[in-house]
Amino acid sequence: MPQNKQVLLDNRPEGEATAANFKLLTTETPPLQDGQVLVQHHYLSLDPYMRGRMNAGKSYAQPQPLGEVMQGGTVGEVVESRNPRYQPGDKVVGMGGWQEYGVVNADQPGALRKVDTTHVPLSHYLGAVGMPGVTAWYGLVKIIAPKAGDTVAISAATGAVGSAFAALAKARGCRVVGIAGGPDKCAYAVNELGYDACIDYKVHADAASLAKALKDACPNGIDGYFENVGGMVLDAVLLRMNAFGRIALCGMIAGYDGAPLPLAYPALILVNRLKIEGFIVSEHMEVWPEALAELGQLVGSGKLRPRESVAQGIESAPEAFIGLLKGKNFGKQLVRLI
Amino acid sequence: MPQNKQVLLDNRPEGEATAANFKLLTTETPPLQDGQVLVQHHYLSLDPYMRGRMNAGKSYAQPQPLGEVMQGGTVGEVVESRNPRYQPGDKVVGMGGWQEYGVVNADQPGALRKVDTTHVPLSHYLGAVGMPGVTAWYGLVKIIAPKAGDTVAISAATGAVGSAFAALAKARGCRVVGIAGGPDKCAYAVNELGYDACIDYKVHADAASLAKALKDACPNGIDGYFENVGGMVLDAVLLRMNAFGRIALCGMIAGYDGAPLPLAYPALILVNRLKIEGFIVSEHMEVWPEALAELGQLVGSGKLRPRESVAQGIESAPEAFIGLLKGKNFGKQLVRLI
Repeated sequence: MPQNKQVLLDNRPEGEATAANFKLLTTETPPLQDGQVLVQHHYLSLDPYMRGRMNAGKSYAQPQPLGEVMQGGTVGEVVESRNPRYQPGDKVVGMGGWQEYGVVNADQPGALRKVDTTHVPLSHYLGAVGMPGVTAWYGLVKIIAPKAGDTVAISAATGAVGSAFAALAKARGCRVVGIAGGPDKCAYAVNELGYDACIDYKVHADAASLAKALKDACPNGIDGYFENVGGMVLDAVLLRMNAFGRIALCGMIAGYDGAPLPLAYPALILVNRLKIEGFIVSEHMEVWPEALAELGQLVGSGKLRPRESVAQGIESAPEAFIGLLKGKNFGKQLVRLI
Repeated sequence: MPQNKQVLLDNRPEGEATAANFKLLTTETPPLQDGQVLVQHHYLSLDPYMRGRMNAGKSYAQPQPLGEVMQGGTVGEVVESRNPRYQPGDKVVGMGGWQEYGVVNADQPGALRKVDTTHVPLSHYLGAVGMPGVTAWYGLVKIIAPKAGDTVAISAATGAVGSAFAALAKARGCRVVGIAGGPDKCAYAVNELGYDACIDYKVHADAASLAKALKDACPNGIDGYFENVGGMVLDAVLLRMNAFGRIALCGMIAGYDGAPLPLAYPALILVNRLKIEGFIVSEHMEVWPEALAELGQLVGSGKLRPRESVAQGIESAPEAFIGLLKGKNFGKQLVRLI
């Protein structure tokens, strides 16, 4: 049985998450039972939603239990199987967690899915052709529902969700404006991801200043907005939304550390007759096949070339995750485990 | 030509609206042109939306022009006609403004509508069977879209919109909970309007206290909420919304005087996957016939018995309007002009 290095949640953050919230442990993988497979993880996905689960309080999902392996999406290869539907060598995506190996009851619905790496690199099944990509698709297609010519905007523009959002929105004839942190990310958004413009929120001290920059980047106003961040960025966008605009609320990373994060001008929702909808993509499994088909085509045809930030080794996962929460990643944040 | 007493907007409020913002004027009604009718107003409607239009800033409608007659809904009787479709004696509803008589280009679409007072008193066409009733209908039916057994709530529960909302929601098998100011209004809401419970927001110092009262009144949480008020009340309701709840945002009267009115916990929109939609009923004219038919039936059958607060004489309109903004009215606020 292989040695399995794991990262557990040791204690809950008070304010910002730190490396001291996690604990590294080495165990031996247990022998397989009938129906189980042993998966060697090639990549672990790090995602902002994990921060919410580190808190004890009510959220849409159960909190991450203390003393257990951190939950998270993984891609890897079957190395041993006692399940007739899986063979060693199969490439699979699942929720293997922050560890090098996973023992999976492969008959459990949704536990494991075989993927084809002919046209799509394995790691992309954790990003553009995985949960983040479908997240972008759902918010854009089902909530924002843009017409050709609409202006749509997104925060965290160069992340895994943002990259997919830009490609999906361009394919629908939209003007796409990103909001990201720093000149490098903004240049990358325009030069590589197809954004028509990208605003560096870090050079703006308040919502009014950011709103002015949005006015220049969105001369016809904003018809649809995909929110990953909250706080000042959301306040600024609300000032530029057109009548009957739609806001897909996917994340409010700015408030994950527990700081108060009020919305300054909620009356604008009324004045501009906006629709705001919060959503979690895992509650809309019915759209995944259609979304993954489009996302796979965009990647296969080169129209969506997502960037990845790759940390090496499971030991690096906590620091990489904390960096992600601070926007230090550039593109989809992964941990390579082989 | 009859003398016509009018109320004009003289200057814009700084902070709270006051009687000094208005000016009373007496003019003579001009001779009719072809196609026009002269309407003697029986009742003027006072509505919270008028406060927003007194400001100069951007809102969903043009600001009320200075030096002109205050806009507003009216019911009355045709007293002179140079339009073949109208005869003296016809009862009509229109936007006659804060004045005793109106000269109307009756062929202009939407300018005037004849109404039948056989089963519905004329004044109710400004309330339950008029704009406020349709407002309640649209928010409940088109945005909240409740199932039987859902819990729905509304602020300003005993006003014109709230009264209609309660009857419409009960007809759909909902538990209906009101929020109103003072024990008299709360008792009236439960005893006369059919609310299952009504909470007096005035006895609660903050959102946490009000949220606790809501928990008692809504043991299964809140599935749909109709917002007329904003501020602390909205913060409290957000704390009790169920997953996938819907909020129809119709008014934020608490912020009409220009005071900042932030939303304390916007992350709850995401955590509970809420849908929030702002709307203005005049932009949805397609629902009016269906809504008015149901509202007329509810009034005709006695299931909706809306209360009215009636001020006498056009001179009393400014004070009655200021009272409305402070919640001093009890039911639909009207001014009787005959």
